[in-house]
Amino acid sequence: GDVRLDLDRERRCGYPEVIYAPGKSVEALVQTFQRLLTERQNGLATRCSSEQISALQAQVPEAIVNTVARTVRWNRAEPESGKVAVVAAGTSDRPIAEEAVETLRWMNVSVDLVMDVGVAGPQRFLQEKHRLEGAGAVVVVAGMEGALPSVVAGWVACPVIAVPTSVGYGASFGGLTALLGMLNSCAANVAVVNIDAGFKGGYLAGMIARQTIQ
Amino acid sequence: GDVRLDLDRERRCGYPEVIYAPGKSVEALVQTFQRLLTERQNGLATRCSSEQISALQAQVPEAIVNTVARTVRWNRAEPESGKVAVVAAGTSDRPIAEEAVETLRWMNVSVDLVMDVGVAGPQRFLQEKHRLEGAGAVVVVAGMEGALPSVVAGWVACPVIAVPTSVGYGASFGGLTALLGMLNSCAANVAVVNIDAGFKGGYLAGMIARQTIQ
Amino acid sequence: GDVRLDLDRERRCGYPEVIYAPGKSVEALVQTFQRLLTERQNGLATRCSSEQISALQAQVPEAIVNTVARTVRWNRAEPESGKVAVVAAGTSDRPIAEEAVETLRWMNVSVDLVMDVGVAGPQRFLQEKHRLEGAGAVVVVAGMEGALPSVVAGWVACPVIAVPTSVGYGASFGGLTALLGMLNSCAANVAVVNIDAGFKGGYLAGMIARQTIQ
Amino acid sequence: GDVRLDLDRERRCGYPEVIYAPGKSVEALVQTFQRLLTERQNGLATRCSSEQISALQAQVPEAIVNTVARTVRWNRAEPESGKVAVVAAGTSDRPIAEEAVETLRWMNVSVDLVMDVGVAGPQRFLQEKHRLEGAGAVVVVAGMEGALPSVVAGWVACPVIAVPTSVGYGASFGGLTALLGMLNSCAANVAVVNIDAGFKGGYLAGMIARQTIQ
Amino acid sequence: GDVRLDLDRERRCGYPEVIYAPGKSVEALVQTFQRLLTERQNGLATRCSSEQISALQAQVPEAIVNTVARTVRWNRAEPESGKVAVVAAGTSDRPIAEEAVETLRWMNVSVDLVMDVGVAGPQRFLQEKHRLEGAGAVVVVAGMEGALPSVVAGWVACPVIAVPTSVGYGASFGGLTALLGMLNSCAANVAVVNIDAGFKGGYLAGMIARQTIQ
Amino acid sequence: GDVRLDLDRERRCGYPEVIYAPGKSVEALVQTFQRLLTERQNGLATRCSSEQISALQAQVPEAIVNTVARTVRWNRAEPESGKVAVVAAGTSDRPIAEEAVETLRWMNVSVDLVMDVGVAGPQRFLQEKHRLEGAGAVVVVAGMEGALPSVVAGWVACPVIAVPTSVGYGASFGGLTALLGMLNSCAANVAVVNIDAGFKGGYLAGMIARQTIQ
Amino acid sequence: GDVRLDLDRERRCGYPEVIYAPGKSVEALVQTFQRLLTERQNGLATRCSSEQISALQAQVPEAIVNTVARTVRWNRAEPESGKVAVVAAGTSDRPIAEEAVETLRWMNVSVDLVMDVGVAGPQRFLQEKHRLEGAGAVVVVAGMEGALPSVVAGWVACPVIAVPTSVGYGASFGGLTALLGMLNSCAANVAVVNIDAGFKGGYLAGMIARQTIQ
Amino acid sequence: GDVRLDLDRERRCGYPEVIYAPGKSVEALVQTFQRLLTERQNGLATRCSSEQISALQAQVPEAIVNTVARTVRWNRAEPESGKVAVVAAGTSDRPIAEEAVETLRWMNVSVDLVMDVGVAGPQRFLQEKHRLEGAGAVVVVAGMEGALPSVVAGWVACPVIAVPTSVGYGASFGGLTALLGMLNSCAANVAVVNIDAGFKGGYLAGMIARQTIQ
Ligand SMILES: Nc1ncnc2c1ncn2[C@@H]1O[C@H](COP(=O)(O)O)[C@@H](O)[C@H]1O
Ligand SMILES: Nc1ncnc2c1ncn2[C@@H]1O[C@H](COP(=O)(O)O)[C@@H](O)[C@H]1O
Ligand SMILES: Nc1ncnc2c1ncn2[C@@H]1O[C@H](COP(=O)(O)O)[C@@H](O)[C@H]1O
Ligand SMILES: Nc1ncnc2c1ncn2[C@@H]1O[C@H](COP(=O)(O)O)[C@@H](O)[C@H]1O
Ligand SMILES: [Mg+2]
Ligand SMILES: [Mg+2]
Ligand SMILES: [Mg+2]
Ligand SMILES: [Mg+2]
Ligand SMILES: [Mg+2]
Ligand SMILES: [Mg+2]
Ligand SMILES: [Mg+2]
Ligand SMILES: [Mg+2]
Repeated sequence: GDVRLDLDRERRCGYPEVIYAPGKSVEALVQTFQRLLTERQNGLATRCSSEQISALQAQVPEAIVNTVARTVRWNRAEPESGKVAVVAAGTSDRPIAEEAVETLRWMNVSVDLVMDVGVAGPQRFLQEKHRLEGAGAVVVVAGMEGALPSVVAGWVACPVIAVPTSVGYGASFGGLTALLGMLNSCAANVAVVNIDAGFKGGYLAGMIARQTIQ
Repeated sequence: GDVRLDLDRERRCGYPEVIYAPGKSVEALVQTFQRLLTERQNGLATRCSSEQISALQAQVPEAIVNTVARTVRWNRAEPESGKVAVVAAGTSDRPIAEEAVETLRWMNVSVDLVMDVGVAGPQRFLQEKHRLEGAGAVVVVAGMEGALPSVVAGWVACPVIAVPTSVGYGASFGGLTALLGMLNSCAANVAVVNIDAGFKGGYLAGMIARQTIQ
Repeated sequence: GDVRLDLDRERRCGYPEVIYAPGKSVEALVQTFQRLLTERQNGLATRCSSEQISALQAQVPEAIVNTVARTVRWNRAEPESGKVAVVAAGTSDRPIAEEAVETLRWMNVSVDLVMDVGVAGPQRFLQEKHRLEGAGAVVVVAGMEGALPSVVAGWVACPVIAVPTSVGYGASFGGLTALLGMLNSCAANVAVVNIDAGFKGGYLAGMIARQTIQ
Repeated sequence: GDVRLDLDRERRCGYPEVIYAPGKSVEALVQTFQRLLTERQNGLATRCSSEQISALQAQVPEAIVNTVARTVRWNRAEPESGKVAVVAAGTSDRPIAEEAVETLRWMNVSVDLVMDVGVAGPQRFLQEKHRLEGAGAVVVVAGMEGALPSVVAGWVACPVIAVPTSVGYGASFGGLTALLGMLNSCAANVAVVNIDAGFKGGYLAGMIARQTIQ
Repeated sequence: GDVRLDLDRERRCGYPEVIYAPGKSVEALVQTFQRLLTERQNGLATRCSSEQISALQAQVPEAIVNTVARTVRWNRAEPESGKVAVVAAGTSDRPIAEEAVETLRWMNVSVDLVMDVGVAGPQRFLQEKHRLEGAGAVVVVAGMEGALPSVVAGWVACPVIAVPTSVGYGASFGGLTALLGMLNSCAANVAVVNIDAGFKGGYLAGMIARQTIQ
Repeated sequence: GDVRLDLDRERRCGYPEVIYAPGKSVEALVQTFQRLLTERQNGLATRCSSEQISALQAQVPEAIVNTVARTVRWNRAEPESGKVAVVAAGTSDRPIAEEAVETLRWMNVSVDLVMDVGVAGPQRFLQEKHRLEGAGAVVVVAGMEGALPSVVAGWVACPVIAVPTSVGYGASFGGLTALLGMLNSCAANVAVVNIDAGFKGGYLAGMIARQTIQ
Repeated sequence: GDVRLDLDRERRCGYPEVIYAPGKSVEALVQTFQRLLTERQNGLATRCSSEQISALQAQVPEAIVNTVARTVRWNRAEPESGKVAVVAAGTSDRPIAEEAVETLRWMNVSVDLVMDVGVAGPQRFLQEKHRLEGAGAVVVVAGMEGALPSVVAGWVACPVIAVPTSVGYGASFGGLTALLGMLNSCAANVAVVNIDAGFKGGYLAGMIARQTIQ
Repeated sequence: GDVRLDLDRERRCGYPEVIYAPGKSVEALVQTFQRLLTERQNGLATRCSSEQISALQAQVPEAIVNTVARTVRWNRAEPESGKVAVVAAGTSDRPIAEEAVETLRWMNVSVDLVMDVGVAGPQRFLQEKHRLEGAGAVVVVAGMEGALPSVVAGWVACPVIAVPTSVGYGASFGGLTALLGMLNSCAANVAVVNIDAGFKGGYLAGMIARQTIQ
């Protein structure tokens, strides 16, 4: 087929190639997933349509589906190592936050999801702050003005990976406002990934947390 | 001369016309200021150049100059009424914050300036929060990601006028990022004015505070 | 469930938390609304879908629906206090203007809606101008070039909250042109909220009007 | 030299080629101007630097200079025909308004300049409105939110040529906000030219007014 | 009802108010149209949906429909006066060009539509150029790079009203590229209206042509 | 030093590495140039400051300077092969056009520069069109609306490399308008390079022309 | 009908006019195609809808359809001349790459398609690099960050035509990011066409390759 | 004074507050620096002007200056821990790369600077690739199209912090193109900071590398 699967990636970069589902035929997707299983490489497909999810569930019984995150994954049994907290501003940011969570599970990293602690109710995050202790990295997922990463970053001593979301309306411009806000964060420990890139946020945080001395 | 001074504005809108200095000749500026004095209307000139400030100081001895704010004003003696807090994120935002402060003094509104309480050091604002009590409105001045108004707004029960500043670099785009962030604030009580518009921020806050039942 | 309702908001900020409906399940929405009723806090849900409106009507009989504004609200019986005028440029701006009106009703503020007085027919606003007398704040709702707030602001002595709408075509860019125009208003008493943010416009105006000495 | 002067333009388009001075050497400029004089075609140079103006004054004694407009022109003696009003919002818009005025004089069109009638003081334009009677076209010059053309257009029965200026600060983005506002004018009789394009505004208005039945 | 019809517009501006159909209910639209008929003012509705067109056809038998232009109009019998040429670059620009044509018919101005003469085949316009002779104004409708107005303007001695269209793909950005190109035209006699604003293009050209000495 | 000169480039890509002068110290520049001479590789430095030009002239006597183009070059003696025409819209585009010309001379390609044939005077290009015959590629340099490449491309049977320039004002946005116009050209044989990229335009045209069968 | 077919284009520009299908009626499309066949000019229609493809297949039996590329073409029998490589970054870029391939087949140029060699797996392109040898031009098709053309260009001695695609999400802005990246390529031999413009990429590469000395 | 130094930051976030010099008076700067020394907290000032550097050198003899990076720092003697590679595309990116290097020295992290390995000469990075072995994080600094991080990321198994620079011209838009390219990187291990944010790039990489198990 057309897909040139990079089976050497795990050796070179630490993790196998991840499948970005949009634009791929159901057949190509299932075949690629099965190929990874045969090679005993952990498989993860992101941004799957309902149709793609159904096909994978039917033909790859080992696959673990998360319909909110729109992901399908399969993991070799392995003990968890490293710890990441995923913090989300509002309930509408949940799908992106869950994509980060699923990516971390696929990496066998321990993950805690802290939901609905946006800045409009400032006491909410202060009450949950303790759950970030011991994390090697924190993923912060937020739309609208994207202020949450700055607020979180001031309380922790580890890297914060900020994931802007397209949640918002009007001058949020599909996540551009949140993205710009995060890039201009006055906190020094904030790095940013693409709009709605829950996968990248989880991946980077997992990579950092796994190599952290505990 | 060319300037068509709107002397009826005080009756119609509550305050006299304010002079926006850029592009005005020194002569026109001095003449306009003297005209207001003669009419016993409070005079305020904003965005003055050093040259304009010197000329006004020399020829209008009653004028009060603020070189940080780049303003010149003259007020009828009148007791203060209403209270506003002006909160600024960083020391670089000071000139814009001072423009708001001077505008409030010109309106005879009581004003308290809280400096350098940006979100990167989250405990700093929490320590000063009490100074906002009793204010009829709060002006929040911030550049970079513009997150401070959201954070302040969650703790007060009065309107917050957010003033984005052009302070920042790179993707701050001359204040655009702060402006967009403030417009998308998840707090309901935040309204926004133009980038670097300290005058407008002070004016609106003063208008609100003066009519507040205390 | 997932929603972390901020029940302390009324004490801290003067009004309870408002529910932004998009992305919320019908169950979560109904449950949150009922929770507020139980706590006897005034409830307001904005941007509701038809499906969400039907469910709330069926399960919360006290709820008052406005299908143009797409809002559902419930109020404790309380006398009105303060007065706001909501001014809209064209008939297409009506849904956003109504969202502001409903917000003000939920706040128990007296409100007068002045429709279809855009600048293309300049005599139309002049004929209705008298209806703004006595208002503690004015909300001006307009799309296209967003010139109406500047025009209104020159005739009143109170704050004007400008709400740009996404009404227009071509280079109106979904409300961006109106937003920019309002931010650059040469009138000093104009503050701006997000595109289509009828709720915020009403909320700020209500907050100002309620604290106004009459 | 390098300049390929289009001497046939007057026959083809009604008026000779106009010289856009930036980037032209003083020698090339003087030479081109003298060439037009020799051919007895009306000459107009726009956006001249002080150095270019001095050279033209020294070497072309017939030249008429306007230092505010930064133009130099020469006209064949001819009676005026047609009438245009040039309306400017603020004193800072004067240089662009004067460029339009000079262009109209070069076309031998009668012109009336109405200054400082911006929308912040709405009664100012109403007082001067009568000066637009009998005009075949109106040029409206404004920066900031660019609302003046919409306001003027509602009172006249002839085309309005809107000239946005780069006057403003913050989110005026060098005139972009005024430009967008004017393009989205809800008045049907408003056409727009480039930012600061006083020449084009005057040229089009002059073309229209000269062919008007009086 | 809600619509505040400006019946004085014809006296003040030369033509009655035109109905912009989007967002108007079928009832309001029909009622407004009938009202104009009763007052014997020429009626024009633009951007009508199929549903709106059917309703107007059924209930206003005098109405003249153009389904390509999506307009409905009614005219008092009157001889034509003035002449305009409407020039369109490609076949995809036809609906906008037809909107201009219908507007001109509603104004009783003589109109000639020159189609498919875009710059990619340069000899095509040269062959049709003669059809522009005697026009008081030319409307040029083009998408993509929007070069056609510059090319046309160099051959005529009357104003060119450029109408950018949203025809194109990729970096045409919904007509923004054509709009910017037209605003920066190196030809002096080009004024611009909003993207896809066929009505405005026709209206301005008609206004100019009707007042032209022939 | 710091500069890692890619001496293998000529073998790999057909031409040696070219030196982009901005940000390089005078010493580094001279040294790199001398190194190329020693290796007998043709040297070209673009965007040189006056200071850099003086130093190169003083220390590399073989160097050929073009102060309009701001280039310095050195060529091995070699017969010319291939032919390119460089067409420029206005005299202000000359520096960029000359950069293309110098690049072609450095490549030993025959070049003809056709100046000041912008679309405002349409007959000018038609008169010079014959000079493009036999060219293997044409470089078209234009600012403002960037319409010239479309116009030229319709008359030739070879690739057109369009170079947008930053010449213009207002909504030309430093060449962005010209760039977008050229990318959206309705002519199929137009490819585009960066704003003011005279070097790239010349380089690509030279590459094409040299490999052309004559 | 309305379509003004430019039958002289083949003589003037080397290839006949190509049909851009969007917005054309099925009848007009079929008729134009048949007209070209009758004139024995090679026919190519791009961006065809399924409906348009079916109609052409039914009524023009000689037509060759590519449903991935959404093209229909017809060629005179002719030996191939020149060679082009089309390189695509990911499987989602395939439709645009195939549009380029079909264009090259219509031009009778030999073409090799190299798929899925994006920069994330750097060894993939290095393994296929040899397939570019002997090409007169290379077309590189990529979305997201658009880095592939720079990488490819460093290894070849012929022009690279870069085609940005709208593949990506978030801050890819419908291909704008890829477009800008390609325009700023640090490689000298990269020219760029519009977003998703597979036709233009193929056309330019074919034009160059056919005239290449082999 | 005005500066509210956050002396608790080291305990809370791992490192002391860093001084962003622009807009600070020389006195305030020196005083803040001396205060940190007295508290025996490591001091770092970034973006210093020449005047600020001279003053710090004169009054704080322990200070270590880097004039290319425009930084001043002071460190407690401490053994290095962790390893970071800083990779820069071109010589013009050096100041930003050096800012990252100085930040890492201030954090007592071992650092290796790999210069001038941009993608235009692809073999250059391949030759230096081995120097990245053992790094806990890599900082990649690049302007123009910003392709280097994607290329580097494919070869390493640790996080890559991408720093876009404002190096480039034309459509590089002051670093925006590089920023967007990096955000859209098809490599999963790339996070991004603000344009020219060498400090942030170094800080995040240092934080990651110091906590890496070696
Ligand atoms: N949701 C996602 N967002 C961004 N990148 C992704 C995502 N899912 C997978 N990827 C990346 O996309 C690459 C595969 O792209 P492709 O070759 O087009 O299938 C993988 O190596 C991942 O690094
Ligand atoms: N710093 C400022 N920012 C915004 N508006 C201002 C400022 N200073 C004065 N103004 C307004 O500008 C108007 C005067 O404009 P002008 O007629 O050009 O002098 C006044 O009525 C004020 O409302
Ligand atoms: N297609 C159109 N494009 C722009 N403006 C229009 C159009 N059709 C009608 N109008 C204008 O819209 C105004 C009516 O707006 P409204 O009050 O919202 O119905 C009229 O006075 C016309 O000037
Ligand atoms: N996919 C395409 N992208 C860009 N231009 C195209 C495409 N297909 C056809 N064309 C061009 O569009 C022109 C026809 O446009 P039109 O006159 O509107 O039918 C042809 O001469 C081609 O140069
Ligand atoms: Mg919530
Ligand atoms: Mg500080
Ligand atoms: Mg109306
Ligand atoms: Mg004034
Ligand atoms: Mg055609
Ligand atoms: Mg010229
Ligand atoms: Mg792949
Ligand atoms: Mg180099």
